[in-house]
Amino acid sequence: MKVIINISLKNGVLDPEGQAIKNSLLNLGFKDFNNIRIGKQIILDIDKINKSEVLEEANNMCETILANTVIENYKIDILEGK
Amino acid sequence: MKVIINISLKNGVLDPEGQAIKNSLLNLGFKDFNNIRIGKQIILDIDKINKSEVLEEANNMCETILANTVIENYKIDILEGK
Repeated sequence: MKVIINISLKNGVLDPEGQAIKNSLLNLGFKDFNNIRIGKQIILDIDKINKSEVLEEANNMCETILANTVIENYKIDILEGK
Repeated sequence: MKVIINISLKNGVLDPEGQAIKNSLLNLGFKDFNNIRIGKQIILDIDKINKSEVLEEANNMCETILANTVIENYKIDILEGK
């Protein structure tokens, strides 16, 4: 099953990459935006039969290595039938 | 309006970060996965009244600076009412 994991910084954690992009956008003349935050998206296929096993495996991956749970949140979406 | 922009590498473009994560996962004993790809997610608020203006602004941002359209695809999702 295809799994999409979105990893984002927790509220209150500084986001230097977001700041850099914000400044670049302002310099280029884009004005009408706010609250820009940068995250990471990991897309992978997990070969398990049922959804709960896939979710458990993805969760393990996030807790073990993919996300730094001190400063990051993660969200797992499973696209069934793919 | 809240806008989520997902930027991913085009098919065929090497993904060294994905390879590194793949190897780390294998070393940690995760075996049942495939096709891992890493992308970027940018979340921001765009202050325009209607959806088509928001979409146009987000599109301009992507083409100008956010995405490298030679090697990356981007996908814009607009969450209305937020």
